[in-house]
Amino acid sequence: MYRNCVIIGKSVKLKERYTLKYIESVKNPKVKAWKKLSTKKERDKSGHYLIEGFHLVEEALKEQIVLEVIVNQDMEMPAQFKIEETEVVYVKEDVMKAICDTETPQGIAAVCEQQTVHFDDIPLGKLLLLDAVQDPGNLGTMIRTADAAGIDAVILGEGCADVYNPKVVRATQGSLFHLPVMKANLSQFIDQLHMPVYGTALEGGVPFEQVEKSETFALLVGNEGQGVSKELLAKTTKNLYIPIYGKSESLNVGIAAGILMYYLRK
Amino acid sequence: MYRNCVIIGKSVKLKERYTLKYIESVKNPKVKAWKKLSTKKERDKSGHYLIEGFHLVEEALKEQIVLEVIVNQDMEMPAQFKIEETEVVYVKEDVMKAICDTETPQGIAAVCEQQTVHFDDIPLGKLLLLDAVQDPGNLGTMIRTADAAGIDAVILGEGCADVYNPKVVRATQGSLFHLPVMKANLSQFIDQLHMPVYGTALEGGVPFEQVEKSETFALLVGNEGQGVSKELLAKTTKNLYIPIYGKSESLNVGIAAGILMYYLRK
Repeated sequence: MYRNCVIIGKSVKLKERYTLKYIESVKNPKVKAWKKLSTKKERDKSGHYLIEGFHLVEEALKEQIVLEVIVNQDMEMPAQFKIEETEVVYVKEDVMKAICDTETPQGIAAVCEQQTVHFDDIPLGKLLLLDAVQDPGNLGTMIRTADAAGIDAVILGEGCADVYNPKVVRATQGSLFHLPVMKANLSQFIDQLHMPVYGTALEGGVPFEQVEKSETFALLVGNEGQGVSKELLAKTTKNLYIPIYGKSESLNVGIAAGILMYYLRK
Repeated sequence: MYRNCVIIGKSVKLKERYTLKYIESVKNPKVKAWKKLSTKKERDKSGHYLIEGFHLVEEALKEQIVLEVIVNQDMEMPAQFKIEETEVVYVKEDVMKAICDTETPQGIAAVCEQQTVHFDDIPLGKLLLLDAVQDPGNLGTMIRTADAAGIDAVILGEGCADVYNPKVVRATQGSLFHLPVMKANLSQFIDQLHMPVYGTALEGGVPFEQVEKSETFALLVGNEGQGVSKELLAKTTKNLYIPIYGKSESLNVGIAAGILMYYLRK
């Protein structure tokens, strides 16, 4: 069910365009700047982030958030890519390896602009609230699942992994570009909501199937080890749990969120 | 919701037992044998596999499948561990690092015996059938979720990752020890079942919520990129899909399986 690769159909050779922009040294200042985007500090400062791979670059181009496309010198650009007005830089394979997070880069990357989302931009329908979700894979997968489940926005509380971390971006499989993702103080955020807010807790909650499905709700899930903080659980309409029928102690937070998002929606 | 670590309560210092068995060289033949268990070939040949970390070792000891416990020389053994009749080998930190798959081992590992499961051993209630699930994290997480959802057994078809791969074992969080996991030819296996078999497919299926919950069923999910093979989809009672309400193209297979296992069970 993953989309791991894109089949390149009709494609155009772009070698003749090397003259436009071509970098072969990993010491080039541009390359150094791209490499720095692997740190949160530099991403925060610049407001930029780096994405990798055909699928993500294609999705980002559609959303017009790409500042620069970076391509291996011997790479054929898929014809469907809308790159006309985007700067394209061709690079040596060494350069691509130096800037990419994956061990075997697909040969295409892009610098994107971070999107700032404000409370007023958020459609107050179905929301996913994340309290200190630290694992990049979990965070990215939950954004992907939220997109699939028709969630309108994802709100990241304090202590969450950086959404522009390459592992998060990759795990979203492009869903990061599909729905608003906003950072917020969850306690204050919940205060502003006029909809049922469902926390998740192993203790003191009700089995999720006792809750009625609804068109608007906020689902709040928490940290991999600690769950949702007590302070936030005290502010919810109701707290839910997913019954464990076997001998395992818990579910992965991404799986739990997936089950609940699909269950709660009407 | 993860259980990432075990809180060590009352504990006993075991340094005085070094004389029993203590290995300090990574060149020791025993260490070489443990290292070899990182390959499927050697695991298949020996019928053994290596697990790491407090939680897994504790769970495996409960199930009495541990042949040897391997402990860092300066490690305190949790008092609740039932190691009386199990061989304990103390090792230098270098040895632990050499045999473990994780970058920062917890200082405890164990050699376990693979369990052979036959068709007649399988309780024919609720089954999860996996067709060529290749990602170790996905496979392990699905076994963990199956355990939580009260699935009676997991059947691995051809092309699945090796269930004794360290990454798979780790992702199961101990659930590997809780329910039978069996390798089988899925086509022949399905022929022997007298229960509804639900395949998963993006095309030609029905939305999952149109299927009635039941006490016995076999859920069949497939490869991350290709889904379930056509041959198997042709043998099912019905094929299901999970509707995508947003713009994402698909769900992660582990998330999809989690949603369906919890939905289908009665």
